[in-house]
Amino acid sequence: MTDQTAPADEKRVVTAALLIIGNEILSGRTHDANLPYVAEKLGARGIRLAEARVVADDEAEIVAAVNALRARYDHLFTTGGIGPTHDDITAQCVAKAFGVAIERNAEAVALLERHYPPGQLNEARLRMATIPAGATLIDNPVSKAPGFRMGNVFVMAGVPKIMQAMLDGLLPGLTGGPPVLSRSIAASVAEGTLAGPLAEIQARHPAVEIGSYPYFRAGAFGVSIVLRGTDPAPLDAAAAEVAAAMRALGAEPIE
Amino acid sequence: MTDQTAPADEKRVVTAALLIIGNEILSGRTHDANLPYVAEKLGARGIRLAEARVVADDEAEIVAAVNALRARYDHLFTTGGIGPTHDDITAQCVAKAFGVAIERNAEAVALLERHYPPGQLNEARLRMATIPAGATLIDNPVSKAPGFRMGNVFVMAGVPKIMQAMLDGLLPGLTGGPPVLSRSIAASVAEGTLAGPLAEIQARHPAVEIGSYPYFRAGAFGVSIVLRGTDPAPLDAAAAEVAAAMRALGAEPIE
Repeated sequence: MTDQTAPADEKRVVTAALLIIGNEILSGRTHDANLPYVAEKLGARGIRLAEARVVADDEAEIVAAVNALRARYDHLFTTGGIGPTHDDITAQCVAKAFGVAIERNAEAVALLERHYPPGQLNEARLRMATIPAGATLIDNPVSKAPGFRMGNVFVMAGVPKIMQAMLDGLLPGLTGGPPVLSRSIAASVAEGTLAGPLAEIQARHPAVEIGSYPYFRAGAFGVSIVLRGTDPAPLDAAAAEVAAAMRALGAEPIE
Repeated sequence: MTDQTAPADEKRVVTAALLIIGNEILSGRTHDANLPYVAEKLGARGIRLAEARVVADDEAEIVAAVNALRARYDHLFTTGGIGPTHDDITAQCVAKAFGVAIERNAEAVALLERHYPPGQLNEARLRMATIPAGATLIDNPVSKAPGFRMGNVFVMAGVPKIMQAMLDGLLPGLTGGPPVLSRSIAASVAEGTLAGPLAEIQARHPAVEIGSYPYFRAGAFGVSIVLRGTDPAPLDAAAAEVAAAMRALGAEPIE
């Protein structure tokens, strides 16, 4: 599959949003494990995850979020709500968001017919082959029931192993921008003492995104500085200045 | 602190949103641990977490999300972006969202003065005492630098231990609705075979929210059915019907 929505422009930042669908996430029962995986895989492909939302299994909420996010970002990935039960309503919501009908997809039915023993492909399971008109299938090498793509929206399973396999299959076909590079430097300094020099370094290097993350580990406190950008030269220059600022405070930077 | 925004109406569902602020979450570097904690604690208090969003350290994004979510839900909780460094911009964004000035808070300054050794309370650390005009402080028993409340918006730290302490301190002052009760029933059945009976049970019990979560554990597959609602009678009735449906499929339900 080739990606026809994102131009192969070396300079342009390609963005994505993630929509996590499911009451079980919002109740705290299930801890989402998909966001970090999606974020890292997209980042390595030069696609910046710019926003994520978690919504309940509610048609109006899902439709509104799909339309808000697909209009705003180059790609929208969704997780959850594509199983056989009554609370799996993502496909019908995406159809509604695009204003198209939902229909049984012959290719998806064939996949499920090959997967289930004769007589086991019941109406509930056939719901997993019912997708928006015009959508194309996303391969599920784990449990066969496919995801689908509609425009710039990629609808994936919520179960992490299946979601990961679906995304891994999609990535080679997605056009990204320049990959985001990062440098990480930690030191045993208080964040509040490094903050002044850090703000000056950030001001000198607007093309580098500098984040400061304090930590408490094994009884010791310190701070990790993460620098991100697409151009290695200013990234390395800013990283060297951060290391120098740490040394000026009497700490040895660990890169 | 008492909550003056949510009426103590026994019938009304009290809602909340969570806004997670930080590039480190969207890059995948840091795995958010706050959502499940907030969800469970609010749920026990009778406050339903209805939506969550993750946005970057970007003023326009944060202001827009704060305004969208505070208008829509009874409470908005935010995590992240209240430290001493240049990338901590939550306070100024909340001020902008409310259209008020940001100012040094005398009570917060006094807290920090007691916490830091003489001469250590520099300009960067004083940023942690700079909050929207009219905001009240949220206690931080872990590391002193306070969060704050502005209207129905509760601004908390991103570091989980600090966030948890802040939320635990807030909860007794928050008015919730009736607490959400839940029942969980698992069995070694395929989700697709239970889906039909489950949809019928859901249709018979509209006041109960029934979720179906397949699992694969130790080589065995099965499904967990979670029933949630505020009224125990329909909840127990629906749970009994789910258990009966599992038995009809030859599986022994585990409650």
